[in-house]
Amino acid sequence: MSKVHEECGVFGIFCPEKMDVAPSVYYGLFALQHRGQESCGITVNDDGVFSTYKDAGLVNDVFTADIIKSLGQGNMAIGHVRYSTAEESERINAQPIVVNHIKGKMALAQNGTMINYTELREELELEGAIFHTRSDTEVLSYLITQERINSQSIEEAVSKAVDRVTGACSLLVMSPAKLIAYRDKKGFRPLCYGKTVDGSYVVASESCALDAAGAHLIRELEPGEILVFDKEGVRSLKEHCGKEKCALCVFEYIYFARPDSIIDGCSVHMARRRAGQFLAQDCPADADVVIGVPDSGLDAALGYAQQSGIPYGLGFIKNKYIGRTFIAPGQSNREDKVRIKLNPVSETVKGKRVVLVDDSIVRGTTCARIVNLLREAGATEVHMRSSAPPFIDICYYGTDIDSKDSLIAANHTIDEIAKILNVDSLGFLNPEHVDKLADPNGGKTYCDACFTGKFPTELPKSGKKFKFDAKISDKKLTIE
Amino acid sequence: MSKVHEECGVFGIFCPEKMDVAPSVYYGLFALQHRGQESCGITVNDDGVFSTYKDAGLVNDVFTADIIKSLGQGNMAIGHVRYSTAEESERINAQPIVVNHIKGKMALAQNGTMINYTELREELELEGAIFHTRSDTEVLSYLITQERINSQSIEEAVSKAVDRVTGACSLLVMSPAKLIAYRDKKGFRPLCYGKTVDGSYVVASESCALDAAGAHLIRELEPGEILVFDKEGVRSLKEHCGKEKCALCVFEYIYFARPDSIIDGCSVHMARRRAGQFLAQDCPADADVVIGVPDSGLDAALGYAQQSGIPYGLGFIKNKYIGRTFIAPGQSNREDKVRIKLNPVSETVKGKRVVLVDDSIVRGTTCARIVNLLREAGATEVHMRSSAPPFIDICYYGTDIDSKDSLIAANHTIDEIAKILNVDSLGFLNPEHVDKLADPNGGKTYCDACFTGKFPTELPKSGKKFKFDAKISDKKLTIE
Amino acid sequence: MSKVHEECGVFGIFCPEKMDVAPSVYYGLFALQHRGQESCGITVNDDGVFSTYKDAGLVNDVFTADIIKSLGQGNMAIGHVRYSTAEESERINAQPIVVNHIKGKMALAQNGTMINYTELREELELEGAIFHTRSDTEVLSYLITQERINSQSIEEAVSKAVDRVTGACSLLVMSPAKLIAYRDKKGFRPLCYGKTVDGSYVVASESCALDAAGAHLIRELEPGEILVFDKEGVRSLKEHCGKEKCALCVFEYIYFARPDSIIDGCSVHMARRRAGQFLAQDCPADADVVIGVPDSGLDAALGYAQQSGIPYGLGFIKNKYIGRTFIAPGQSNREDKVRIKLNPVSETVKGKRVVLVDDSIVRGTTCARIVNLLREAGATEVHMRSSAPPFIDICYYGTDIDSKDSLIAANHTIDEIAKILNVDSLGFLNPEHVDKLADPNGGKTYCDACFTGKFPTELPKSGKKFKFDAKISDKKLTIE
Amino acid sequence: MSKVHEECGVFGIFCPEKMDVAPSVYYGLFALQHRGQESCGITVNDDGVFSTYKDAGLVNDVFTADIIKSLGQGNMAIGHVRYSTAEESERINAQPIVVNHIKGKMALAQNGTMINYTELREELELEGAIFHTRSDTEVLSYLITQERINSQSIEEAVSKAVDRVTGACSLLVMSPAKLIAYRDKKGFRPLCYGKTVDGSYVVASESCALDAAGAHLIRELEPGEILVFDKEGVRSLKEHCGKEKCALCVFEYIYFARPDSIIDGCSVHMARRRAGQFLAQDCPADADVVIGVPDSGLDAALGYAQQSGIPYGLGFIKNKYIGRTFIAPGQSNREDKVRIKLNPVSETVKGKRVVLVDDSIVRGTTCARIVNLLREAGATEVHMRSSAPPFIDICYYGTDIDSKDSLIAANHTIDEIAKILNVDSLGFLNPEHVDKLADPNGGKTYCDACFTGKFPTELPKSGKKFKFDAKISDKKLTIE
Repeated sequence: MSKVHEECGVFGIFCPEKMDVAPSVYYGLFALQHRGQESCGITVNDDGVFSTYKDAGLVNDVFTADIIKSLGQGNMAIGHVRYSTAEESERINAQPIVVNHIKGKMALAQNGTMINYTELREELELEGAIFHTRSDTEVLSYLITQERINSQSIEEAVSKAVDRVTGACSLLVMSPAKLIAYRDKKGFRPLCYGKTVDGSYVVASESCALDAAGAHLIRELEPGEILVFDKEGVRSLKEHCGKEKCALCVFEYIYFARPDSIIDGCSVHMARRRAGQFLAQDCPADADVVIGVPDSGLDAALGYAQQSGIPYGLGFIKNKYIGRTFIAPGQSNREDKVRIKLNPVSETVKGKRVVLVDDSIVRGTTCARIVNLLREAGATEVHMRSSAPPFIDICYYGTDIDSKDSLIAANHTIDEIAKILNVDSLGFLNPEHVDKLADPNGGKTYCDACFTGKFPTELPKSGKKFKFDAKISDKKLTIE
Repeated sequence: MSKVHEECGVFGIFCPEKMDVAPSVYYGLFALQHRGQESCGITVNDDGVFSTYKDAGLVNDVFTADIIKSLGQGNMAIGHVRYSTAEESERINAQPIVVNHIKGKMALAQNGTMINYTELREELELEGAIFHTRSDTEVLSYLITQERINSQSIEEAVSKAVDRVTGACSLLVMSPAKLIAYRDKKGFRPLCYGKTVDGSYVVASESCALDAAGAHLIRELEPGEILVFDKEGVRSLKEHCGKEKCALCVFEYIYFARPDSIIDGCSVHMARRRAGQFLAQDCPADADVVIGVPDSGLDAALGYAQQSGIPYGLGFIKNKYIGRTFIAPGQSNREDKVRIKLNPVSETVKGKRVVLVDDSIVRGTTCARIVNLLREAGATEVHMRSSAPPFIDICYYGTDIDSKDSLIAANHTIDEIAKILNVDSLGFLNPEHVDKLADPNGGKTYCDACFTGKFPTELPKSGKKFKFDAKISDKKLTIE
Repeated sequence: MSKVHEECGVFGIFCPEKMDVAPSVYYGLFALQHRGQESCGITVNDDGVFSTYKDAGLVNDVFTADIIKSLGQGNMAIGHVRYSTAEESERINAQPIVVNHIKGKMALAQNGTMINYTELREELELEGAIFHTRSDTEVLSYLITQERINSQSIEEAVSKAVDRVTGACSLLVMSPAKLIAYRDKKGFRPLCYGKTVDGSYVVASESCALDAAGAHLIRELEPGEILVFDKEGVRSLKEHCGKEKCALCVFEYIYFARPDSIIDGCSVHMARRRAGQFLAQDCPADADVVIGVPDSGLDAALGYAQQSGIPYGLGFIKNKYIGRTFIAPGQSNREDKVRIKLNPVSETVKGKRVVLVDDSIVRGTTCARIVNLLREAGATEVHMRSSAPPFIDICYYGTDIDSKDSLIAANHTIDEIAKILNVDSLGFLNPEHVDKLADPNGGKTYCDACFTGKFPTELPKSGKKFKFDAKISDKKLTIE
Repeated sequence: MSKVHEECGVFGIFCPEKMDVAPSVYYGLFALQHRGQESCGITVNDDGVFSTYKDAGLVNDVFTADIIKSLGQGNMAIGHVRYSTAEESERINAQPIVVNHIKGKMALAQNGTMINYTELREELELEGAIFHTRSDTEVLSYLITQERINSQSIEEAVSKAVDRVTGACSLLVMSPAKLIAYRDKKGFRPLCYGKTVDGSYVVASESCALDAAGAHLIRELEPGEILVFDKEGVRSLKEHCGKEKCALCVFEYIYFARPDSIIDGCSVHMARRRAGQFLAQDCPADADVVIGVPDSGLDAALGYAQQSGIPYGLGFIKNKYIGRTFIAPGQSNREDKVRIKLNPVSETVKGKRVVLVDDSIVRGTTCARIVNLLREAGATEVHMRSSAPPFIDICYYGTDIDSKDSLIAANHTIDEIAKILNVDSLGFLNPEHVDKLADPNGGKTYCDACFTGKFPTELPKSGKKFKFDAKISDKKLTIE
C-alpha cells in the first residue's frame, strides 16, 4: 500500500578494536528496513579479509543467527538495504559490492542515483571495463579504482571519483584499513554519524539506525563532506562542501524517513506534526474528529488536531501480521485487500464528520478505498487532507516515481481528485510551507522537484532514468 | 513483548450455496491472528467431504495460495488459530480436529479451557477411548460422539455434551450438513455472528473477523446459547441460557481483543479509551504529555489525555518488520532487544514530564526497560499508569498465566513496583471501574479473577491447570 | 520407474542401558528406505517418556542432525518408513502411532495390511472409538488397548489383539518398559532380529537394516511368533506359531527386499541369481551378451549369464543423481524421461544379440522403452527375460497392486506382450521354480497369489482393498 | 567417498530456430552432474537478450520447473556444472559468466584451469580491470573483451585470447548471434559435438550429455580447434591445431567420465574393461570371485573377471538414497559411515578368496574400510587391484588434487600400502598400459602426470595452484 519507494539505506561501523560487528550492522539495517525491502547485505572487514553475505529478502529473513555468526569478528563493517524494480534480477544487484583489486580492495554501499550513469559506463567500457550489474555503485567502484592509481590515499581516490558523478549519492567505502563516508554536494539523501559508548563510530542513512546500534547522534554529514574513519580517529574533508546549493529531498521529512529519526538537526516527527499544523491553517475543516492513515499520516493528523482544536482519534487498526508473504486468495478487487490490512474503528468515526490526514496523495487508488471504508463505517463527511503538496513530477534522485502517467495530481485538478476520491473536501499543504517543515524560520533549501518540476541538476541526456533502458540497451549491445 | 497470551480464536462460515469458502476463513483467521500465533487450520466441508489443512505457524505462512486452492469449494468451513505453550508438540494439537466416525463425522474448533478435563479424560479412557493429543477439544469430540448414540440430532448431542463440561468454551462444530456454534453458560470468551451481503452466515471470536470476511455483525451469542446453521437458516437453542451469572473475561476489553472489535455491544476501543478516562480520574498526574505503549496502550493513553487535558503525543516508533523470525544476535540483555522493537521519539519526550500509559503491568520486565528508554531519550519525569488494576492471580479460562510467581503485583506493593520500574509515580485503574469499562452505567458482570482472585467456577481438583501435568502424567501412565 | 511398491518397513532397538538410540534407528530406516518413501518416523522411549518425530519425506530429508539430537537418549526406540497412495494425506498417516492411555501408553509401527479392517473398525466405532487416520495400525492400537483391561501384561494384550486380525502384519509395539515384535501367523512379511556388540537387541523388516545398525543377524521371527525384549532379555511366545501354512511373499525375494538382506535364512541376492539360473534353463536364448535392467535385474542377469555361458555385460548407466525432485521439463513423452535416467552403454550392445533380464514385467510401459533404447544403441536382437512368472492378480498383503487393469500379463498373451514390447523373444520364469528360489530343495511355501490368483486368506468382504473405500465411506458416514 | 573431483562440465546448444532450449541444457547438465556438484547455471539467448539462472546446488535442486520456464525460449543456450573447494564462496563463482559490454555481450562457460592465471590477472588489473570472482573464466572474459577491439569477429577475439592462456581449457562462448566452442591445444579435457534430429547442434564435455539431449555424436573437437555455430551452420577454425602434443587427461577414462560416454572415439566403459583385462595380466590372483567397488570399479572388475576366468560377482549394495543431505549422527568414526553407504553381499564373499577391483587408490582411507567390510562379511582373502597406476603427484589441470601429502602412493611403498589396507595382495595397473586403454594399438598421447610427475606444461610461477593463494592474496592486496 505504500506509494513511493525509497531506493536504499546504508550503515557502517568502525570499532577501536576487533569485535562482533555484524550484529550491530544487522540492527542498523533492521532499523533502516523501510528504506529498502528487496535485498540486503553485510560485509565484515577483519584486518583486510572481507566476509560478505547478501541476498534478496528482508534483513530478518536473509540473516539467520548462523549467517551472522559466520561473518565473524572484525573492526569494521558496512551494510545495505535496497529497493529495486521488478524487472531487475535482485540478487546480483544486492550490495555491498566488493572489489578485489591489485591496487586495493574495497567494499561499497550507496544510497543514490547517478544522473550521468550512461555516459560514465560507456566511457569505462571503451577503456576495457566489464560490468556485471546495472548498479551505479559498480560504476563508482570503477571510478575509484581508476583514480587510485594516481592517488596518495583511498580518500583522495574517492574524492576525485565522486567529482565525476552527478546526482544523489550517500556513499560508504570500506578499504582494508579505513571506512569512508561521503554525502553528495547537494545532500540529496541524509547521512549522519555518531558514536557508541565503547568508542565505535557509526554512520547511517538515518539516526534511528544509530539508536538501534546503541550510538548517539553526533551530526549529519554536510553536503559534499567526506569523513575518514581509521585507527587515528575521524577526519573530515570538506573540499567539495559549500560549492552547491543544498537540495535535501523534502520527501524524507514527509514520508521516507522514520519519525524517530533526526535529519539535519530536525526531528522527522516534528516536521510531520508541523506539516499537520500548517495544513490546519492552509485548509481548515468543520469536523468532529481528526484521524490519520496508519502509519505515515499519524504524525500530521496529530499536528492538525492540535492546531485546529478538533479532537484526535484512532481511526484505523492496521493488521500487524501483514508481511511480504500475504496472499489475497479469491479477491476480485483491490478494495477488499485494503480492508484486510486496515479496518476502521467504527466507534471513532460513526456518525462523525471526519478529517482524514495522509502524508501525500500519489496515485490515489488506496486513498479512495480508505475513504470508502470510512463511509461504510458510518462517517457522515470525509475531509481529506494531504500534508504534502500535489505530487506532479517524476523523481531522478533515488525513488521509484518514473513516470507522470500514474500521478493523480499530474493529470487531474483538485476538484477532479476530490470526486475521484469521493471526499467532501480536499486540501493539500501549501507549497510555500514545504521549506518551513524542518525549520519554521526557513532558510534551508530542499529538493522539491516532485511538487514543482524544478530539478536541482541537469537531467539524464537520454531523457530517461537509466534503469528503464535495460531492455533497449540489451539490444543495442548486440553487435554480432 | 506481549504479557499474556490468549489461547485461541475460531471462525466459521455457512453459505447458501457451494462457493470458495476457504478464502473467507483465511481472512477471518488472519484478523484473529492476535488470539493465537502458534498454529492454525481450516476444514472445508464439500457436501460431507471434509478437506483439512493445519500446521504450526502464522496464517500467512501456513496458507499459501496453492493450499487455499487445494481446499476446494464447499458450503461450509471452520478455522482456528491457536496459542500453545512451548512444551507441547504444536502440530499435533492444531485444530480443527476432524472425527471420522460411523455414527457421524464432524470437525471441531474451540476457544476455551476445560476445568474438569482430567476427570473427563480418565472417565473416557476407562471406557476405551484413545487420545492422540492433550487438547481438551479432543475430549469434547468424544463426549459429543458418545451423546450422538442416544440423540436425535447433532445439536442435541452437542447440547448434552457441553453440559458435562466446566470452564470456558466458545465452540464450533461442523457436521456434514450443519454448522453449530456454542458459547458457554458463563460466556467467558466472546463469540459473535453476522451475515454477508450474499447471504452467508459467519461466526467468529471477534467482530473484526466478520469485517475481514465482508460480513456485518448481527450480535454476540448469549452465554449458553447454541446456534444451528443449516439449509433452513439459523436457529437458536437457549436451554442452557440464563442459568449462570455472566463472566465474560474483562481482559478481552483491556488487552486481548482488537480495538476495532465490538464485544457484547461495546466497542473495545471505546472500553479502552474509557479505561484511560477513569484512570485519569483515579490517578491524575502533573505532566506535559501523555503517551501510550504501542500498540496496546494507545487507546487508553488517548482517553487519559482527553480526560486530563494533557496533550497526547506519539511517544514510540515500533519497528513494523519485527516478525517471528527476528533474531537478536550478540545481545547481552533483554533491554537492547526492546530498543530494537520500540524506539522513543525524542522530540515528544525530551525535557518533558511524561505520563506513560500501558494496558496492564503483568511481569513488569518490559515495562521497566521502556521507562528506561524514555529517560535516556530525555524525559524528566515518568508517571506510569496502568489501565487495568494490579494483576494478582492466575487464569484458568484460556490464557497462559499459570503461576503467581512471575506476577509483579502478586509479590510487591505498589511502592515497590514503582521503584522496580524506576518511575516517579505509578497508578492503576481502580478495580471498581472494571465493571464499567464496557458500560459506564454498569449492570454487567465479568470474570475479573486475575485482579481479585475470585473465580467464577470451581477449580481443577488437582489444583493445577491440566497442561502442566504433562510430564507427570507421562510417568504416571507407565504401567509396564 | 518402479513397478510395485512395498508399503512399509519397521525397525526397533532395545538397549541394556540408556544411550543415543535415535541414530541407530535413523541408520536402520535409511537402509529400509526402499520399502517406503512417502513418510517416516521415530519414537524414542526414555524411561516411559516418549519423543516422536514423523513427517512426509525421505529419511534423509525428514531427519536433520538437530531433529535426531532433539529426540534425546533412551533405552528403546522404534521407527517406520511408509509408502502410501496419493489420495491420502500422508503426514497424518505417518507412523509410529503413539497412544497415551490411562491403561498404558504405547507406540506402534507396522508393515502389513489388514483384511478385516472395515469390520473391525465398524465394531470399534460402535463401541465409542474415534479414529483419526485410515491406518490399520490405529485399529490395532484400539484392539490392544481394549485387551489390556483383562490382560496381565502388554504381551498378553498384543497376543489377544493380533488373534482378531486377518492379513499381513509385521508389528512392533513399544510400551514404557518393553519392546514387542510380532510376525503374523502366515509370515507374509519378513521380520528378523539380531544383536549388537554392545548387547542391544535390534529387530527389523530386513537384515540389511541390522547391518546398518551394526548388529549381527540372529534369525527371522517364526510366523506367529511374539518376541518380548525387556530388562530380563528376550523371550519368545509361540502360542500362535505353527497354526497356519507359511505364506511369505515371494516377491520379497524377487523384487522388494535388498539383495544384501537375508530372509528366512536365504540370501536375497542368491535367490535372484538362482531365479536367473532357472530362467536360463526355462527360457534359453541364442545371444552374445546378457544384461540386466538396473538395479533390480542385475542379480538375475548374472545368474542367467553364469548358467547359460553367455558373457555378462554392463548394459546401462543409471544416473545416480535422480531424486524425488527430478523434473522433466518440456518432455512430450514418457520415453525421453526413461533415457535421462538410464542410458545404454553402446559398447556393450552395439551389433550384439542381447538377453535383457528384468526381475518382473508388471505394467510393461518402462520395459518397452528400455527395449527401444537398446535398439537405438545398436542391439541387433533383444531377448527379454523376466525372472518372475507373469504378474496376473492384485495383492491384498501390503503392496500397491490394486487392480488387474494395468497388469499387462492379466490382459495379454505372451505373444501379444512380446509384440507390445518389441522384443525378438520373451520368456518368464516357470511358476514351478518359484518355490525353489530360496531353497532349491523346496519344501517351503510362499504367497504367490500375484502369479496364481490363489490367495492364502479370505478376501475383504467388500471385495475391495480398504483404502479404496476412502471417498465412498466419506459419503456413507454422512448422517446429517 | 569419491577420491578426486573433476572441476567442471559444459553444455551448449544452437538451434535453427527459436525454441524451448533450457530443457535440453537441463538434461545435458543433469547427465554431466558427475563432473561438478557444487553449482550450476544456464544462460538462454533469445535474439541477443540473455536470461541467466545460476546457484549453488545440484542441477535437480537449482532448476525447478518454474525456473526452467522463466528462462524462456531462445535459439541458443549454454550451461555449466561446477565443483569448487570449500573455502570459496560458491554462488559468486557459478557459471555461465555473462558480460554486458558496449563492445559486445557474451556468456562464457569453461572446464579447465589456467596455469598463468596470476600473471594475467595482475596484468589486467594494472590496466584497470576489476574482478568479482576468483574464477579464471572471468580472466578469459576480459581477454576476449580486450581482443574484440581490434578483431573482425568474436571468433577472432576468442582465438587471440586463448593464445595468451596456458593450461586446460574447454570453453564455450555465446555472443548474441554465435555459439563458439574451443578445446585447448593439448586437449586436456574432452569436448565433443553432435546434432539432433531437428537440426540443432549440441556441444558438451561428454557424449552422455548428447544422448540425454537427444543428439547423436559427430566427433570430439580436435585439440586447438575452434567451432563456430551460427545461422550459416558450423565452421571449424584450426589455426591452433597440431601445434602441441596431445595431452588428454587419462583419468577421464579411468574415473571421471561416465562409462556410457565416448571420448576421442573410444568408449569409456571399454577403456575401463580393458584396464581390468590388462590388470589381470599385470597382477593375476588366485581367487574365487572378482568384485568391483561400486560404481567406479565395476567395469574394470568385469574386465578382470573376463580376462582371468575367475567368476564375476556382485559384491556390494550401494544405498541409492544417499544424497548431499545425508547426515551421520552419532558416528564416532568414518568406518561406520562407509557401511551405511555400501553393504557387502555376504553370499558373494563369505568363505571366498576375493579380488577387489577399484579404479584407483588415491588417499586409501575409504579403501581400507571397504576391505574391512569384506573381512567382516567372511571373505577369507582380499586381493586388492587398482585399475590405475599409483597416484603420486598433484594435478594442475582441472581436478582437486592439490598436495602430495594425502596421496598414499606418494608416501608409501606398495608393501606398506598393502599393510595399511590390510589386504593379502595388492596390484596396480602397469604404467605402460596407460597409453593403451583407449586404443590397445597405442599411438595416442595422454597427460598422466598424476602417475608420472611429468607435466605437459610449465607450472605456475608461484609453484602453487592459484586457488590456494586466496587467503594470502587477500592480505597482499591490502594496501591501506
